[in-house]
Amino acid sequence: MFLISERINGMFTAVKKAIAARDAAAIGEIALRQLAAGADALDLNVGTAAAEPAEAMVWLVESVRAVSAATLCLDHPNIEVIRAGAEAAGDNFIINSTTAREEDLAKFLPLAAQTGAGLIALTLDEKGVPNTVDGRVEIAARILIAAEGAGLPPDRLFIDPVTLPINVAQDQPKKLLEAVSQFKLLSDPPPRAVIGLSNLASGSSEKSLLTGAFLAMAMGAGLDAVILDPEDRLLIDLLITGEVLLNRTIYNRDYLKAWRAGKT
Amino acid sequence: MFLISERINGMFTAVKKAIAARDAAAIGEIALRQLAAGADALDLNVGTAAAEPAEAMVWLVESVRAVSAATLCLDHPNIEVIRAGAEAAGDNFIINSTTAREEDLAKFLPLAAQTGAGLIALTLDEKGVPNTVDGRVEIAARILIAAEGAGLPPDRLFIDPVTLPINVAQDQPKKLLEAVSQFKLLSDPPPRAVIGLSNLASGSSEKSLLTGAFLAMAMGAGLDAVILDPEDRLLIDLLITGEVLLNRTIYNRDYLKAWRAGKT
Repeated sequence: MFLISERINGMFTAVKKAIAARDAAAIGEIALRQLAAGADALDLNVGTAAAEPAEAMVWLVESVRAVSAATLCLDHPNIEVIRAGAEAAGDNFIINSTTAREEDLAKFLPLAAQTGAGLIALTLDEKGVPNTVDGRVEIAARILIAAEGAGLPPDRLFIDPVTLPINVAQDQPKKLLEAVSQFKLLSDPPPRAVIGLSNLASGSSEKSLLTGAFLAMAMGAGLDAVILDPEDRLLIDLLITGEVLLNRTIYNRDYLKAWRAGKT
Repeated sequence: MFLISERINGMFTAVKKAIAARDAAAIGEIALRQLAAGADALDLNVGTAAAEPAEAMVWLVESVRAVSAATLCLDHPNIEVIRAGAEAAGDNFIINSTTAREEDLAKFLPLAAQTGAGLIALTLDEKGVPNTVDGRVEIAARILIAAEGAGLPPDRLFIDPVTLPINVAQDQPKKLLEAVSQFKLLSDPPPRAVIGLSNLASGSSEKSLLTGAFLAMAMGAGLDAVILDPEDRLLIDLLITGEVLLNRTIYNRDYLKAWRAGKT
């Protein structure tokens, strides 16, 4: 399971303040903490408050690159902000994200193809996010075809079926599981499936249980990557246990410790 | 999810002692505690120490029936012990279990069909438990056909793909998930899928995490019933959360409490 940390995001107060004050040390500290907790990649999101988002993105990239060579996940809807971040990053990054709208695919797919980046693509088009499994799979198929046309191979494409909060859309988690398992049948090699987990429990109680149980289910259905907070202990314990159950991490009595030791 | 309590089993010291001393109050107390913790049914297993297993089974049935009308799960490999327990129970019971060996099916299927009982059937035949998904599904199909011939409808048949300890067979959990999802495609209506969860973590550390994460995965794959200890708090929290995620229990901020209140 490929773990993308969600915490370097301007919607969190500490990050918002650090961006405003250009406090690179504060960003570096969060980055190292998230990596120590198990992150494979760090999502970088300047938030909505940054007056110059492209400049803030470049600064975020440089602040993290100063302490780590980890994969970066450049998170912004505007391609110019992504382009600026991509130039600062150089390589080893993922673009988060494109929608399946034609105009977005026409911009983001070539950039990902040319820069060697991964690309997260949401099953969201001109009509919004479909309510059904079939609707999501149909959009995913369209994204895959467009990616092929742009020269982006399936294994650099991360399809995100778009998680909605369970307290407003309780029928959706089951559909996401089915969508994930169907994404994996769309091509050979298949695209990767990714989920942004926190939105599921947005506004809910029992966030760790809800996200943790759903993560286990989604791993069973074929999920490849997840965007989450690796400092959520129960959630990561369940993720590690899922890796053991799927025979991707060797079981021993200290498997939780061993996994964490391998990350630091 | 149909929860079968595993705790009234002569392999546990307290139960072994209670059976030896014919201490019905002790059995009744465990039964009520397991039901309060969320059990829908109580597995009754006299263990290997009972000198007269049929008589001990009848006594167990009567001891539990004295405090509860809950579904009983009569657990013994010998059909005479089951038959004695079935007569004492009268109705509302499940037989646990038959193998797929021809001689076992020829005995257990008619008894289940005639008594109106449910029947747990293991994907285990003359050659043992298959190592593969296909092997398990093939046996399940054979059981289904035999059940139809004996007049036992699929919804009273619980197919158990046989859980092995992860510390000796780490490749098996993933195969069990695939087997469960394939069992559900074998007929319409489909048979039920059941798993005995504890064996997965037998001899392992982190039992609650291993069984809980696997239960979530198996629920996502279509599991209908599970044999476990409902007093394992994290395990049941994950089960309840799984029910919420699959939209079978309504989400609200107190969904854990609400589910438990509904059980008592």
